[in-house]
Amino acid sequence: MIANKMNDLVKNSSVIRAMFEEGKRLASIYGKENVYDFSLGNPSVEPPKEVKEAIIKILNEEDPNLIHGYMNNSGYEDVREKIAQSLNQRFQTSFDENNIIMTVGAAGGLNVIFKVILNPGDEVITFAPFFGEYKNYVSNYDGKLVVVSPNTVDFQPNLTEFSNKITKNTKAVIINTPNNPTGVVYSEETIKDLSKILNQKQEEFGTSIFLISDEPYRELVYDDIRVPYITKYYNNTIVGYSFSKSLSLPGDRIGYLVIPNEVDDFEDMVAAANVATRILGFVNAPSLIQRAIAECLDAKVNLDIYNRNRELLYHSLISYGYECVKPQGAFYLFVKAMGGDDKAFVQAAKEFNILLVPGSSFGCPGYCRIAYCVDYEMIERALPAFEKLAQKYGVNKE
Amino acid sequence: MIANKMNDLVKNSSVIRAMFEEGKRLASIYGKENVYDFSLGNPSVEPPKEVKEAIIKILNEEDPNLIHGYMNNSGYEDVREKIAQSLNQRFQTSFDENNIIMTVGAAGGLNVIFKVILNPGDEVITFAPFFGEYKNYVSNYDGKLVVVSPNTVDFQPNLTEFSNKITKNTKAVIINTPNNPTGVVYSEETIKDLSKILNQKQEEFGTSIFLISDEPYRELVYDDIRVPYITKYYNNTIVGYSFSKSLSLPGDRIGYLVIPNEVDDFEDMVAAANVATRILGFVNAPSLIQRAIAECLDAKVNLDIYNRNRELLYHSLISYGYECVKPQGAFYLFVKAMGGDDKAFVQAAKEFNILLVPGSSFGCPGYCRIAYCVDYEMIERALPAFEKLAQKYGVNKE
Repeated sequence: MIANKMNDLVKNSSVIRAMFEEGKRLASIYGKENVYDFSLGNPSVEPPKEVKEAIIKILNEEDPNLIHGYMNNSGYEDVREKIAQSLNQRFQTSFDENNIIMTVGAAGGLNVIFKVILNPGDEVITFAPFFGEYKNYVSNYDGKLVVVSPNTVDFQPNLTEFSNKITKNTKAVIINTPNNPTGVVYSEETIKDLSKILNQKQEEFGTSIFLISDEPYRELVYDDIRVPYITKYYNNTIVGYSFSKSLSLPGDRIGYLVIPNEVDDFEDMVAAANVATRILGFVNAPSLIQRAIAECLDAKVNLDIYNRNRELLYHSLISYGYECVKPQGAFYLFVKAMGGDDKAFVQAAKEFNILLVPGSSFGCPGYCRIAYCVDYEMIERALPAFEKLAQKYGVNKE
Repeated sequence: MIANKMNDLVKNSSVIRAMFEEGKRLASIYGKENVYDFSLGNPSVEPPKEVKEAIIKILNEEDPNLIHGYMNNSGYEDVREKIAQSLNQRFQTSFDENNIIMTVGAAGGLNVIFKVILNPGDEVITFAPFFGEYKNYVSNYDGKLVVVSPNTVDFQPNLTEFSNKITKNTKAVIINTPNNPTGVVYSEETIKDLSKILNQKQEEFGTSIFLISDEPYRELVYDDIRVPYITKYYNNTIVGYSFSKSLSLPGDRIGYLVIPNEVDDFEDMVAAANVATRILGFVNAPSLIQRAIAECLDAKVNLDIYNRNRELLYHSLISYGYECVKPQGAFYLFVKAMGGDDKAFVQAAKEFNILLVPGSSFGCPGYCRIAYCVDYEMIERALPAFEKLAQKYGVNKE
């Protein structure tokens, strides 16, 4: 009775569910503390205390019908203005409330923008490895996701192949930096080169090509790395942001889109984003949490905790003989699957009670993702298992 | 640059925006207190105190990573179980957590269920007058909304025309009781007759026809009216519920779907609803507010306030010569447009600083909607204006 389009998706979801059940089964046999689940991107660091303080203050001081009521479908004007000013201060941009659309997380924002721009058959380009949901988001509006193959040397995008894959049907390009699953940050040089190609292709085809920057991991960077603010490099940029990771609020579903004045058909774009927010059933981003994050724009989760995890896991794995580009951001390591077959490697890891996600899920077979948004102590307990796993493959540097 | 499908929607939205601007213009000329805005369904009664208490208690006592983190895309299991038990107690049903999917309000829930069941070209039947957004929700999944014309005698559905409009392509029927915009509650007899027709047609065509009951106004009823619980009358029922009105939390975006075990292909349906919640970009219903409403299932806004508004407005309008079926629920009056043309009548009302919504927006020309979720004092101030409006049309009973 379910729609044809849903059939495969439901089958896939039962694979994920089976993996989840397998984790529970292993925990019931070996004890929860002896199963090492690195499969989920659910933040392990607590939200900063400012979030709780802001929510309670708002509940105590503001009008209940304002904080729980409908507002403009694009969000509260004062919240949007505060976000605009915060961006201006940090990135020397010139936004105001009219450039900001509050969204139900980044996932909600991406769906809104694809609803706004995609006609059936339009192409959206992304770079492998990529967040697997992009395929679904584009398919929701009958678009086609075109994937540029991975550059596994440093996981910067392969711009030559990119340039060749742009056609007159290319409506958008979606990038994700810091990247899930590699943790790699696209360099300023990369962004400049990418922008140059896009400008050339827009001129060549007489089209508008939107560069959608999906930025849930913007604030999660280490070693003083700077993440370029994309709107400054390319006019037709739209930013999708989320507070899911920067404030550890993924369940609360709060984020925003930035649509700069420079975007083609700006007025129509923001009007359409407002309408799309409504008719897709979001109606508006959740109200109380909108008001709360506006009071926490300078707050950030404790990155030292993730960084400590990153250092321990990265250096240990390298010492065991794993191959991996050291991540500069996010909370993932993307390691080469020993033996070459990522699905087989993930199965082998399971024998050591280690749960990972195969790179195939990100359009990059031969690798697998380790999410280190977990307890430090779990990483410590898991290290001997990772070592044994490497030994099983006959890889051992020590 | 925006998608073709969005063009008309953006044009429509600028009509609504123009109406909003007109309200602001009138307020700037005549003073805010002399403009009578009855156009919005934004609850005016405060949320019950239990909501604030629950949120603060949860923030103080529960694990921050639990209350702000990802959970099952269908929602927290304990929250869903509490809702199921609350329904069982109130309506003698037999639900458990597996029958409940938490959603981003009723609008989110309806989008999820249409994504789950609609193939392009499938038909969804509704009864005029109906909430105008249904058309967009169905169109999002390339379905076709088929409208049964209104029965303006008592606004119970026209079941003869309904029966004739069911075809082999009918995938769903959507009802909304208590109804927006009429405030009418469908009687138990109506529900029984409607169910009988659906069962006959399912057999005749060998199809499954889902009855979707959109119930944001279920708790807003007056005079001890009982609203039948639809799953008890028809097996293929799916309920879309929202706390937007029962707890005055429309901005927080929280509701749920009920998918009973009796529904055809139950397992696939709930699995697909879980996946649809994820890929449409909701990911999950907002987390903190999920946990809060689970502590407020017996709480309710103060209905006496709406009832007082209803009585004052209804009796006053009748005494001025307006024609209207007395609403049993929700917070709307659906009055006959004097002169017969609802758009002209709404324009005429504006001359007296009264803002209304034409019935055409609900598929029912010749009427207009008055939302009485406003301050009692505004109604008092507006009454002379309503009387003068009637006099302009030469209607005056006194």
